[in-house]
Amino acid sequence: MSDTATNLDHVDPVWARIQEEARQLADTESGMSGFVHATVLQHGSLEMVIAAHLAEKMANSEFGASNLCDVFADAFIGNDAFAESVRADIAATFDRDPACRAYLDAVLYYKGFLALQAYRAANWLLHQNRRGIALYIQNRASEVFQADIHPAAKIGRGVFIDHATGVVIGETAEVGNDVSMLHSVTLGGSGKEGGDRHPKIGNGVLISVGAKVLGNIRIGDCAKIGGGSVVLTDVPAYTTAVGVPAKIIGKVSGPEPSRQMDHSVDQSDDDA
Amino acid sequence: MSDTATNLDHVDPVWARIQEEARQLADTESGMSGFVHATVLQHGSLEMVIAAHLAEKMANSEFGASNLCDVFADAFIGNDAFAESVRADIAATFDRDPACRAYLDAVLYYKGFLALQAYRAANWLLHQNRRGIALYIQNRASEVFQADIHPAAKIGRGVFIDHATGVVIGETAEVGNDVSMLHSVTLGGSGKEGGDRHPKIGNGVLISVGAKVLGNIRIGDCAKIGGGSVVLTDVPAYTTAVGVPAKIIGKVSGPEPSRQMDHSVDQSDDDA
Amino acid sequence: MSDTATNLDHVDPVWARIQEEARQLADTESGMSGFVHATVLQHGSLEMVIAAHLAEKMANSEFGASNLCDVFADAFIGNDAFAESVRADIAATFDRDPACRAYLDAVLYYKGFLALQAYRAANWLLHQNRRGIALYIQNRASEVFQADIHPAAKIGRGVFIDHATGVVIGETAEVGNDVSMLHSVTLGGSGKEGGDRHPKIGNGVLISVGAKVLGNIRIGDCAKIGGGSVVLTDVPAYTTAVGVPAKIIGKVSGPEPSRQMDHSVDQSDDDA
Amino acid sequence: MSDTATNLDHVDPVWARIQEEARQLADTESGMSGFVHATVLQHGSLEMVIAAHLAEKMANSEFGASNLCDVFADAFIGNDAFAESVRADIAATFDRDPACRAYLDAVLYYKGFLALQAYRAANWLLHQNRRGIALYIQNRASEVFQADIHPAAKIGRGVFIDHATGVVIGETAEVGNDVSMLHSVTLGGSGKEGGDRHPKIGNGVLISVGAKVLGNIRIGDCAKIGGGSVVLTDVPAYTTAVGVPAKIIGKVSGPEPSRQMDHSVDQSDDDA
Amino acid sequence: MSDTATNLDHVDPVWARIQEEARQLADTESGMSGFVHATVLQHGSLEMVIAAHLAEKMANSEFGASNLCDVFADAFIGNDAFAESVRADIAATFDRDPACRAYLDAVLYYKGFLALQAYRAANWLLHQNRRGIALYIQNRASEVFQADIHPAAKIGRGVFIDHATGVVIGETAEVGNDVSMLHSVTLGGSGKEGGDRHPKIGNGVLISVGAKVLGNIRIGDCAKIGGGSVVLTDVPAYTTAVGVPAKIIGKVSGPEPSRQMDHSVDQSDDDA
Amino acid sequence: MSDTATNLDHVDPVWARIQEEARQLADTESGMSGFVHATVLQHGSLEMVIAAHLAEKMANSEFGASNLCDVFADAFIGNDAFAESVRADIAATFDRDPACRAYLDAVLYYKGFLALQAYRAANWLLHQNRRGIALYIQNRASEVFQADIHPAAKIGRGVFIDHATGVVIGETAEVGNDVSMLHSVTLGGSGKEGGDRHPKIGNGVLISVGAKVLGNIRIGDCAKIGGGSVVLTDVPAYTTAVGVPAKIIGKVSGPEPSRQMDHSVDQSDDDA
Repeated sequence: MSDTATNLDHVDPVWARIQEEARQLADTESGMSGFVHATVLQHGSLEMVIAAHLAEKMANSEFGASNLCDVFADAFIGNDAFAESVRADIAATFDRDPACRAYLDAVLYYKGFLALQAYRAANWLLHQNRRGIALYIQNRASEVFQADIHPAAKIGRGVFIDHATGVVIGETAEVGNDVSMLHSVTLGGSGKEGGDRHPKIGNGVLISVGAKVLGNIRIGDCAKIGGGSVVLTDVPAYTTAVGVPAKIIGKVSGPEPSRQMDHSVDQSDDDA
Repeated sequence: MSDTATNLDHVDPVWARIQEEARQLADTESGMSGFVHATVLQHGSLEMVIAAHLAEKMANSEFGASNLCDVFADAFIGNDAFAESVRADIAATFDRDPACRAYLDAVLYYKGFLALQAYRAANWLLHQNRRGIALYIQNRASEVFQADIHPAAKIGRGVFIDHATGVVIGETAEVGNDVSMLHSVTLGGSGKEGGDRHPKIGNGVLISVGAKVLGNIRIGDCAKIGGGSVVLTDVPAYTTAVGVPAKIIGKVSGPEPSRQMDHSVDQSDDDA
Repeated sequence: MSDTATNLDHVDPVWARIQEEARQLADTESGMSGFVHATVLQHGSLEMVIAAHLAEKMANSEFGASNLCDVFADAFIGNDAFAESVRADIAATFDRDPACRAYLDAVLYYKGFLALQAYRAANWLLHQNRRGIALYIQNRASEVFQADIHPAAKIGRGVFIDHATGVVIGETAEVGNDVSMLHSVTLGGSGKEGGDRHPKIGNGVLISVGAKVLGNIRIGDCAKIGGGSVVLTDVPAYTTAVGVPAKIIGKVSGPEPSRQMDHSVDQSDDDA
Repeated sequence: MSDTATNLDHVDPVWARIQEEARQLADTESGMSGFVHATVLQHGSLEMVIAAHLAEKMANSEFGASNLCDVFADAFIGNDAFAESVRADIAATFDRDPACRAYLDAVLYYKGFLALQAYRAANWLLHQNRRGIALYIQNRASEVFQADIHPAAKIGRGVFIDHATGVVIGETAEVGNDVSMLHSVTLGGSGKEGGDRHPKIGNGVLISVGAKVLGNIRIGDCAKIGGGSVVLTDVPAYTTAVGVPAKIIGKVSGPEPSRQMDHSVDQSDDDA
Repeated sequence: MSDTATNLDHVDPVWARIQEEARQLADTESGMSGFVHATVLQHGSLEMVIAAHLAEKMANSEFGASNLCDVFADAFIGNDAFAESVRADIAATFDRDPACRAYLDAVLYYKGFLALQAYRAANWLLHQNRRGIALYIQNRASEVFQADIHPAAKIGRGVFIDHATGVVIGETAEVGNDVSMLHSVTLGGSGKEGGDRHPKIGNGVLISVGAKVLGNIRIGDCAKIGGGSVVLTDVPAYTTAVGVPAKIIGKVSGPEPSRQMDHSVDQSDDDA
Repeated sequence: MSDTATNLDHVDPVWARIQEEARQLADTESGMSGFVHATVLQHGSLEMVIAAHLAEKMANSEFGASNLCDVFADAFIGNDAFAESVRADIAATFDRDPACRAYLDAVLYYKGFLALQAYRAANWLLHQNRRGIALYIQNRASEVFQADIHPAAKIGRGVFIDHATGVVIGETAEVGNDVSMLHSVTLGGSGKEGGDRHPKIGNGVLISVGAKVLGNIRIGDCAKIGGGSVVLTDVPAYTTAVGVPAKIIGKVSGPEPSRQMDHSVDQSDDDA
């Protein structure tokens, strides 16, 4: 596995920044330098960092790190779509979470980020007709990161999943670009029959903590779903839905709720 | 530990099917053949597969796989009630989740299925006056599968827990046969006093994602609890309850909601 | 690391009781005696028990138990504030959960208790300007215990987090003394800007299962938040709030909801 | 696996003594009490102690402790010949090594003792037509204990292998009862053809450090082989052989060299 | 890492035979099928089998299996010299050890074979100017297989190291093709100065158990060194040397001692 | 455990040099930077490096790295005698082995060096009346490094044990300063009675590969023992002994054989 630093670093600002942050962390917290070198600095590309990090976190006595790392490297190395989406996901995490002060933190720690990259591998493997290993990755990620994302779901780039515990994204769900969601969000199906049964989420949507979006419904671009809501019907673009079951309470105030991360809902807009 | 294939395979269609699915997976995904043989094909019975698989997943540096595997084998081998319920749980998972395409997937991967079998061991151990190890299993399963099921709860057969993250089932809770529930469902108590303080769930009930059923209340057979609901009072058989706090909004449309897995709630029935 | 039993045991009744409970467990469940000795009886203080136990649970191939144990011992040994709060947390867990029959169970098993002690270490480390390792502990605890508590949050003593899966406590959140909360509770922020953006929870508050408290709002002393509620505005002391979004439905019935653990909400008080 | 203490302890003085020594060690060295309970005190019989201890020492990522422990338990539990020989081996180690102050030390630590018990399992498995696993155990023991004993060799009881590093005992070798040998002793074959090609060692023989006994030759009862010797021809009973190649230098001075452990050779007997 | 079975199997009889032997083992010893698939059958080439097997055996908490496996795969995959020598080493082990009944046994178990392949990787890495990792492999192999082979030594193909414990081959040693040696053989240097200071061993030489060949001396083709000998001077081709210090005692009886594995030395040839 | 870099580095040239060598290795072999930081650079003193490195190498499922690291740190930190001897041992290894090109290699890799430091800990623990853990360390080191050194032996400083496999040093053995010995050297006792029964080795002695020194005999200062010799009687200072059994063959040629590492024996001096 060729894993040497390339002279493309000057055109890979995300990777260059992560390396710089890693060096600073190793310098300021000496007890972490072994960890930081092993996870970041001894690798030659961001793709290998993610592959090895996921492998170490997801390995167990039944399926070891070597095998997993090879699978992830297969999926990530030389995959242009992944190269773009992983960088967009890192930036999204950093931009939208004020508690995230470094790209490095997203890469090393954020369960939502890591579960999303595991999904990206599983999705790629599914398209290579390797359903068996794709399902393995899905379910192992669900144990380790507590976010259960089916490999057949379609998820865009620049997606941010904060905290991530309890997130479920079903088999026929679709998620657009630049979407943000919080922990305990469910994009669930309904019924025991197969077929297209999960939600379709537009671009720029914000789905707040614990919201359940159920069934083959459509959430329009830049919509906002309030925390704890249960959404069973379509939500138009640029509107806010809230409640159990959710009702439309008005227009969203800004252009892209997913970037504003404003979880408040304007009660004066309540049409109840 | 006798672990040889018996000539009862022809009368154990569940186990025979799982073996066949495992062989197919090993053949089609060569990189998984070590995993599939180690977890399934080298064992002589479904009971040993579950015992060893739980042990490997739940082992850590404080309590090793050998010890755990012996405990689970004690609980499962030669236990007719377990033999029946584990097969019913597998069938329930397969029948009710359209994303589940194989018995094997339920056995190897589903956190809800695995947490439920760990509970079945813990419950058996509790009845053997081995409370210490029963509590260990409960809490370790809560870490590993994120479903916290008290060993003293009573749970029937043919139970399906989908996704499972965040499920809590309390000490005096009872769950009938053929119940389905989703992730983040709580069957919780109320008050700091002991005694009978958790819900009693009838047969064939469907409890949708994130619903909280709290207190010593009774959910009648074939009732349906809507996603995100907070249920604080009895729900009659064959009715649907929804909301925070939940209200009865009408009759369920089919015979057994747990088998239909229809999470939609008919808004026209809303009595609000 | 000095880890010998001191003759202060007679003035440390919590530690003395835990040792006694551990001896009883080792005696009655012989298969657990190795576990009980390794985790409790071979250590010389409650602080070392917690340090070593957290280290073993949180260690992985990237960051080993030796390093982690040293970090936790640094944070806990000789730290009077920790000595007081960890004992108060143990008592709170035991007093308020009728399913908890021993101090030992809280220490060894309760994810909420363990995540809280990991937070206490991370918070101490942050104040030592060791932000790097503080973030590591936060995020590793989120993987292992599924409770994501930011090290900069301020949390009092005698806090009980039951079941714990899915709990999120944000960077500028404050939690008073003697608070109880259940699994899936979120003390979340709003907006992508930094600054003081998370809730302030008073003393003696009870936050029931799955409640989301969002934004820089104030929950007064001894308030009660109903299960599944989404709280977006201040809640006065000694009142009960419930619903999505939550509304005040009346006064709390007893002095300290966190100690009563009564999750029922009196519907007759509903002002809707 | 039934592993409970039996009331036969009063007729199993070796096991009773080991338990007593283990209790004393746990009491005097508190930091070892977890180890001592996990390896000895939580087991119900000497046989289970040996099975579990070998399994933990010999397990690796390719062949886990659960599987190995089952294999060893199969071989040891209820095997009367093993019950006798393991106790005789313990006594031999204790009686003949003045540095061995406890039966417990032999059981927990001595590489020669442990490699010998692994051989006893492999030999039993070979007779069960389980050649594959027998070879696995032989070779894994050679890695872990550095003593390579072919499962088809025949070895009596009361055998003591001191230090053990580098010991090799070939496929058709035979070793009588009450034999002692030191590290780096080889009972080797000659030639690339199969068949009976290894030494036959009588009862009570002492083979000193680094001696090589090569070919299908016979070492008579109570003979003594000097350190570093290379023995290529028969050695009569009750004689001492020494040198490269070894020559008979006289009679042994006592009844059983293996029990005297006197490695000196009387130069005055040298027939050179 | 491309690891798929190629259609070159028909021209790779060694690999084809190993796969067949592995399938038979998995079939006859069901408890080993997980092991056999994970180590052999799920890999696509003999080279990957060796790389992964060495990695798993040599990994520890400081240097994990993923990293090691990549290093070994770098060294082995597409390396024609290795492809030839590893197959010759397997055949040599099988042909010359009557206790070795399968190619598979050599590959999976023989410490000498595995240490030799680890050396081949280290030697290759040294020539890539990767001295650091070459030394790591040398020393880790010395711990795990107890054979300490310096990466700068030159070793031919078809080499068989039986039992292997205690073997040492120094920095400037050279070993020809088709050499056999046994455990505890040393090809050592002399003096604390660097430079060319180790033995040069010709083709077809047999070095019997525990022989020490010391200094920059030459052992001619097809010579035989008796067990336990200490060789300090040149040994001509086709002669036998024995003793401490070794003396020439005559001609070897057959063409290639390394293939005959006849460790006896004809005393009648003794020129003493 | 305080483990911060001190400003004493300028007076600790050994530690300063090791850090510098480690930095160079991390820079030139990027794939090893995680290893190098975790083992060396993230520690604050040479003593902690040795403690943690031994702990990681010697840990297993029965006795974990945290416990072991604490034990070693207890023995090493603030122990002036250890501080001196460990630095002398490093220098001895580097000075006398031409294949050793860095202090770092001795510290990280040399089995003889590591076994010797483990002995130094065990010896210290024995003097603290912690015989139980001292024996554990002895025997675990014998498994891991294949050098079995009794904790009650007395060993000076500046000792070099090359290759180390098979070394045995008995309970009442004494080894002076600046001694060198090679693999498979035995300083053994004789007889089954206790008491003073092992050799006393003077300063500056060289004991070559595989030599056995047996019984309570005295090897005088600066003596040399030839490879493969079996020494059963006293050897005067500054003389060379060789053979089985060993005879004095003359004076040593230089001042300190242990520093010359000249394993040749001048045959012209042979008195035979």
